[in-house]
Amino acid sequence: MSVGTELLLGQITDTNATYISQRLAAHGVDVYYRTTFGDNLERVTEGLRLALSRADAVIITGGLGPTTDDVTREAIAAAFGRELVMDESARAHIERFFAARGYAMTSSNLKQALVPQGGELIANPKGTAPGVLVEADGKLVFAVPGVPREMQAMVDEAVIPRLVAALPKSLVIRSRVIRLAGIGESAMAKKVEDILVGQANPTVAPLVGRGDVILRITAKGESEHEVERSITDVESRIRERLGEYIYAVGEEPLEYWLVQALTERKETLSIAESCTGGLVSDRITNVSGSSACYLGSVVSYDNEVKATVLGVSRDLLAARGAVSAEVAEAMATGVRRLCGSTYGLAATGIAGPAGGSPEKPVGLVYTAVAWPDGVESAEHRFHMDRLDNKQRASQAVLLMLHHRLRRTA
Amino acid sequence: MSVGTELLLGQITDTNATYISQRLAAHGVDVYYRTTFGDNLERVTEGLRLALSRADAVIITGGLGPTTDDVTREAIAAAFGRELVMDESARAHIERFFAARGYAMTSSNLKQALVPQGGELIANPKGTAPGVLVEADGKLVFAVPGVPREMQAMVDEAVIPRLVAALPKSLVIRSRVIRLAGIGESAMAKKVEDILVGQANPTVAPLVGRGDVILRITAKGESEHEVERSITDVESRIRERLGEYIYAVGEEPLEYWLVQALTERKETLSIAESCTGGLVSDRITNVSGSSACYLGSVVSYDNEVKATVLGVSRDLLAARGAVSAEVAEAMATGVRRLCGSTYGLAATGIAGPAGGSPEKPVGLVYTAVAWPDGVESAEHRFHMDRLDNKQRASQAVLLMLHHRLRRTA
Repeated sequence: MSVGTELLLGQITDTNATYISQRLAAHGVDVYYRTTFGDNLERVTEGLRLALSRADAVIITGGLGPTTDDVTREAIAAAFGRELVMDESARAHIERFFAARGYAMTSSNLKQALVPQGGELIANPKGTAPGVLVEADGKLVFAVPGVPREMQAMVDEAVIPRLVAALPKSLVIRSRVIRLAGIGESAMAKKVEDILVGQANPTVAPLVGRGDVILRITAKGESEHEVERSITDVESRIRERLGEYIYAVGEEPLEYWLVQALTERKETLSIAESCTGGLVSDRITNVSGSSACYLGSVVSYDNEVKATVLGVSRDLLAARGAVSAEVAEAMATGVRRLCGSTYGLAATGIAGPAGGSPEKPVGLVYTAVAWPDGVESAEHRFHMDRLDNKQRASQAVLLMLHHRLRRTA
Repeated sequence: MSVGTELLLGQITDTNATYISQRLAAHGVDVYYRTTFGDNLERVTEGLRLALSRADAVIITGGLGPTTDDVTREAIAAAFGRELVMDESARAHIERFFAARGYAMTSSNLKQALVPQGGELIANPKGTAPGVLVEADGKLVFAVPGVPREMQAMVDEAVIPRLVAALPKSLVIRSRVIRLAGIGESAMAKKVEDILVGQANPTVAPLVGRGDVILRITAKGESEHEVERSITDVESRIRERLGEYIYAVGEEPLEYWLVQALTERKETLSIAESCTGGLVSDRITNVSGSSACYLGSVVSYDNEVKATVLGVSRDLLAARGAVSAEVAEAMATGVRRLCGSTYGLAATGIAGPAGGSPEKPVGLVYTAVAWPDGVESAEHRFHMDRLDNKQRASQAVLLMLHHRLRRTA
């Protein structure tokens, strides 16, 4: 159960539900229903009664704050017909939290130390609002705050261990992600259509990502061993059809695998970005350990920066325009020379919505990769909005590096 | 209602629910419950019966595909006790769709032309699966596919108009976002605590963003005029307490307002990034029109790039270390000189999880801003994971520019 009017107004997306579902699936706990409520005591209470009638355990996120809008504590007490009582150690914790920061504490903050009679509080290592746990009538109810990092820590450290210990021996669910490059989504789906449609367990589903082509195999069974084996069987069938396009197996994105490969090869990378505006560099530096292979980038939005910093010839810029295969190649070789890296990547194009022309429309992007004795470029045409065009272009330039590395593996 | 086992497994996040909720809120339709089901006929049918018992209208996404897993059509028929019948014009549409693309059509594809007796199909301009509309017992049920772009088109063009026409005169809901800088979340909340707690309509809620401090005012009423006036009243009360911290009113993020301000002032910007790895540049270039004021960036991950490209002195790097106020300032003045911009921004720090030391722990970040006759820096300490530390650092460096612009407004 997710509690919060802001969810029902669409002001935020319920990523907490995704996180908790993933954690439960990984531990083989079946999730049958997920319901979202506004900050309304009566509806949350009724919803919890219904949930208790159809599940062994209920996890609630949100509604544990100090304001009168926060009704989760009251709803749990009401659903079980219990009083709320003050937990003295939680009260002391909250008082210390405020004292340490020199904040004034109001009586409403103490509301967070209330717990339904017979229940327990769940420690919140990252905030003031503790969670609530009530075990009664053979059912378990957990309530954790809606703030994602507080929720995540409490789910991992308190909810999942308690739940897994309490539930009857459950099925194991595992999934495996196959990542493909160099083939489009529909061409990929066509090659494995019978596997996508015909499988009940494991299931195989294409994930539509932002420029990524992914298949997720999910299997269910009584043991880790059995499940892993049936996933491996399906993976083999997929490899027979699509082996040449598979570049990695795992949850991590393309940039992670590129950083691993470069680091292993003791090679280095620098990047020249125009239309991607820093996104390619951002993706690479999201990978922990990327400093082992990534040296730096130049975002040359302005043509003067292309000329003075990257050394792209002004004649070339004038003759071919900034959005051209030749300039992409000059940017890639320029940044490679400037930073002294093994490879240089580049992207130049028109992200939109403005800046297009009949000859060079919005979404036209050139990418290039330079290596010690060569350079090559590619032309792309994307049809998305500005942010998605940037994303697609960043994927295209990273894929060029992937193909280059593979060719010299 | 959202239908799809992949949602309950956490394989995808339910952004459809967010979209539909936003559209309904904008049209003053109250959403009280949102429930997610797996691909299970019995549970979806029961869930629909429950939904019909507590709402005037139900919107269902997902479960309209051609496979046996797709149960939404059957569930609607079962909930109303009706038969499914073939819609001949939908059958012809599907046959044409496949013929035009040269795909082989299987009998399961024709399942998508089935409609509960007495119901209608909703045209799907972007795919093969039509939607379903049943009006009975004074209730409306809409079903649309789960593919976001198909769903969005059908919700906008068919579901919302029909729903708004059918429901009793509905209330208008509007919201307004107040953006603050230079004050922390808790200090902000403290100054307007009575407004946050005491308001039923409009409501005022702090939004916990990634380093952003935001208040959202949401009001409900019978007319646009009435609602806007009550929002403006609350905004005035907030301005009395927090006026000096408010930098903008609107949904757009900080970088948008900075691009507007720089463009208006005919001033330009360049950026030197170390720990943020391109994220600051990416955020600025996400703003359409940023090329009017943004010239370029250097991501100097490697110290050699700091020295050779940005001109940071090797002695300074050796004496103070790359993560220092002095190097941040040298990076900001260096990139400003290199790109010839009015302002230069810089961030250098340790994003983590590795690379920290007792003297320079993970999360330590220095930011700097250089202008035509000066430079200043600030020290920060973040306590998040790598990606959130990057995000916080990017926000800190953009805020430095904001304060600089304000001081010389």
